[in-house]
Amino acid sequence: MKNGWSRKLFLCPDAPTAEDARPDTERIIDEIRKQGISGQEPVRFSVKALRSLYPLCPDADWQITVTLAWDGEGWEITRLEAGDTTAAHYGLCVDLGSTTLVMQLVNMETGQVEAQAAGFNPQIRYGTDILTRIFYTKDDPGRLAELQKATVRGLSELMQKLEAETGVDVSACAALIVSGNTTMVHFLLGLDAFCVFHTPYAVRTLDAGPLSARDLDLPMDGYVYCCPGKANYLGGDIVSGVLAAGIADSPELSVFLDIGTNGELVVGNQDFLVVGAGAAGPALEGGVVRTGMRAEPGAVDRVRIREGKIQVHTIGEIAPKGICGSGIVDLLAELFLYGWMDIRGKLVPEASRWIQRPEGGELAAEYAPGLFFFQSDIDEFLKTKAAACTMVEYMLQVIGLSMEDISRFYVAGAFGTHINKESGVTIGLYPDISRDRIICPGNTSLSGARKILLDRGLKKKAEELIGKMDYVQFGAVDDFLHLMVAATAVPHTDFSRYPSVMRRREEIQRHGEEAKS
Amino acid sequence: MKNGWSRKLFLCPDAPTAEDARPDTERIIDEIRKQGISGQEPVRFSVKALRSLYPLCPDADWQITVTLAWDGEGWEITRLEAGDTTAAHYGLCVDLGSTTLVMQLVNMETGQVEAQAAGFNPQIRYGTDILTRIFYTKDDPGRLAELQKATVRGLSELMQKLEAETGVDVSACAALIVSGNTTMVHFLLGLDAFCVFHTPYAVRTLDAGPLSARDLDLPMDGYVYCCPGKANYLGGDIVSGVLAAGIADSPELSVFLDIGTNGELVVGNQDFLVVGAGAAGPALEGGVVRTGMRAEPGAVDRVRIREGKIQVHTIGEIAPKGICGSGIVDLLAELFLYGWMDIRGKLVPEASRWIQRPEGGELAAEYAPGLFFFQSDIDEFLKTKAAACTMVEYMLQVIGLSMEDISRFYVAGAFGTHINKESGVTIGLYPDISRDRIICPGNTSLSGARKILLDRGLKKKAEELIGKMDYVQFGAVDDFLHLMVAATAVPHTDFSRYPSVMRRREEIQRHGEEAKS
Repeated sequence: MKNGWSRKLFLCPDAPTAEDARPDTERIIDEIRKQGISGQEPVRFSVKALRSLYPLCPDADWQITVTLAWDGEGWEITRLEAGDTTAAHYGLCVDLGSTTLVMQLVNMETGQVEAQAAGFNPQIRYGTDILTRIFYTKDDPGRLAELQKATVRGLSELMQKLEAETGVDVSACAALIVSGNTTMVHFLLGLDAFCVFHTPYAVRTLDAGPLSARDLDLPMDGYVYCCPGKANYLGGDIVSGVLAAGIADSPELSVFLDIGTNGELVVGNQDFLVVGAGAAGPALEGGVVRTGMRAEPGAVDRVRIREGKIQVHTIGEIAPKGICGSGIVDLLAELFLYGWMDIRGKLVPEASRWIQRPEGGELAAEYAPGLFFFQSDIDEFLKTKAAACTMVEYMLQVIGLSMEDISRFYVAGAFGTHINKESGVTIGLYPDISRDRIICPGNTSLSGARKILLDRGLKKKAEELIGKMDYVQFGAVDDFLHLMVAATAVPHTDFSRYPSVMRRREEIQRHGEEAKS
Repeated sequence: MKNGWSRKLFLCPDAPTAEDARPDTERIIDEIRKQGISGQEPVRFSVKALRSLYPLCPDADWQITVTLAWDGEGWEITRLEAGDTTAAHYGLCVDLGSTTLVMQLVNMETGQVEAQAAGFNPQIRYGTDILTRIFYTKDDPGRLAELQKATVRGLSELMQKLEAETGVDVSACAALIVSGNTTMVHFLLGLDAFCVFHTPYAVRTLDAGPLSARDLDLPMDGYVYCCPGKANYLGGDIVSGVLAAGIADSPELSVFLDIGTNGELVVGNQDFLVVGAGAAGPALEGGVVRTGMRAEPGAVDRVRIREGKIQVHTIGEIAPKGICGSGIVDLLAELFLYGWMDIRGKLVPEASRWIQRPEGGELAAEYAPGLFFFQSDIDEFLKTKAAACTMVEYMLQVIGLSMEDISRFYVAGAFGTHINKESGVTIGLYPDISRDRIICPGNTSLSGARKILLDRGLKKKAEELIGKMDYVQFGAVDDFLHLMVAATAVPHTDFSRYPSVMRRREEIQRHGEEAKS
């Protein structure tokens, strides 16, 4: 792939003679030019590569492979190898999440992912949530350095995992594209991130450009490029996601919703992009639910009601321990469809013996033996659902569009990947549109980073996207709260927006009655 | 000076507000653009500079000074300071000689030299001559690293000296221009230099471009640029010298001769440059003379014959211990003018009682009590003199020119600076042309480096000069040896080339006879 952030070229320059005594650097750069690297792109050697010229070149009879790393303006020759090693050409991309790091080793010749490794972000030991970490490091350069080192250690460990899994010398990679939110990028660079959460929200940087891996103490050659961000709450991970989904490449209108710890939203097409961000996430991921848990073995991830009973599936198909995001969405959808929960999201104890008050307290649905989903869990979840929906609705209103104008509704992130699309519509998290227009592209932060890795031209594209983005501030308007109340209902106070859901509910409840009778 | 390798700019961006929450990096770069740094010139932050943004910027009420280092393609912001510190803006240049390092701290705003420091090249402990050092390090990366470290230590020590002398924080300098021969540059970069002296003389590099000071372990910010060279024996020090003398800027023809450990020669003007190099130096600098010594206290540096006696001056005006280059040239000129030495360079014992055979051995001139300059010293010296002259003569022949076509005859280096111009002509080292056309510009390697430091456009100029240079190989031709024999005479076998010298000799000898009679 000629457009990637690194190149490997097999060169066979003539060996030096009395008649042709060009210095090694010139001899090699001349050959690189012959292979089509334009004179518009400066080429230089790293000090390390200079030092490896001899005796490597004569020992290899001047049949050598050079690795070129793109520094944003030109190429740095980072490594020389004997013989033709162009097939072994790899690069790295990483989704630098506040909880999880996911890194891919990418074959830069084929574009294929050779291996993927994931791990917890070692910053977690300084606080599970970002704010704790920010306060830990605030105005304390020593602690900030700890966080920076922890981040680099996290990345290094993933590099080791990838190396162990594939046998590839990962330190020879000449490019790492990082996609992360603004705080994560600040910590990676060793920058105080209090600015991200504090007025006037002027952060240290949203675009540091390519930086030498050495300067960040990463055990690899070449350059690290953090996908640039739009604003404090709208980081490079979202810009990367927009690139991955390609919503700015098409005349058709898209909604791009990323629900993680926060909710980020982009609406637009090739002509405009409106962006916003707001608190959304943890409840959706099961964070504030009493029996909520991560999507780990034992988590209920699928729920259906059949013959008056709640049937569950667990990850690893072992005894249920709790419930994760996709299980919750399924559960609420089924409760609603079968009339065990009403439009307001209130449990209906008359509807089923599984709706009860354990130990005489709060109403709850017993979704598995001894595991209860309480009314307050539902309330909390629906509030968060409403926040996400309202972001979309509010933004569409601001632009003067309605959901009917939208061709594609993207739900990025692990959440979108795992929840049942139909259930998402049922509870009103997704709009009631043709299901093939609801697209769950997975970890777009990572796939966008990979896309950039394989096409350095996307650096400019990302900058252009950011220039095009209009940032909308949520929550600061009365209208927003008003909309949110409506969206707290299941699926929404305005039934007309959810014709397929209401139809289905009617059918189920009619059949249910038929079944009972 | 706007064209230097570094800039300092005082910036007063607006402080961030809710309405203007640009990130710090963008805020600062926007301001830099307003100060006239063209959009054609990329600007980026070093990781170190990024980390210094906070709390420096708010603490300084956003009145800050940035230092920009030119990396060959764009600017790296290397340092931020509170307030307006633009007046304290310095850069470094160094003549990286195999024996001596001479460094200057240059005021980048005024172009003035603030201080100069010199010291022996610490490589000397690995061999006083270059070849010994090359063999010491040949094919031994560990020893090569020793030499590299020694070189860096030498530079660091000079930086410390400059700092101690001026109180300037030298580590804040963002540019160091290095002018050195090809071997010295190889050692600085940590490259095996055997290639410099071994066929096919294809060296590792003649132009490594600007390199990060960090990558070379130099205790400063920014970039190190080694002036590019033309060939193994014609390094960046000569290219730098040609730039300093400006011989390629004029339509008039110049000869540029640098006599150090080797002799390097450039003939040309704005249209062409012919270059060559050959063994020349040590004899001229007193190296192979039995009582020869460096230009240190006690060295005879000026000689004249008056009333039949040799009168000498010593450096430090103390008792003579030996004789240095300028003393030797004076001595030979006087011996010749007074007839104590003949045209062939042979001492004439009948001419003076100071020409004698100490202890019954070889003929010698007793130039100071107990200090003898032997016939074999003269022979050796004249051979070297002949080599230098013959380079010039041979090259002029190759080009099809004669000395009459030459407007300026530059003799670069310490040698040219210290020897008496008239004596140089007398012994035939310089041509017998109008004395104001003989120019001794001093250490042009250093002044060229300084010129580059203050004008980064000269990087391109240097590359163009090199592209224009035609390299002539000396010594490989019969004609060269033939010419050399003629040039071994004093001043030359062809008297007609030295009319003023022959006239003066006649006069002196006539007056001398008158004085005797």
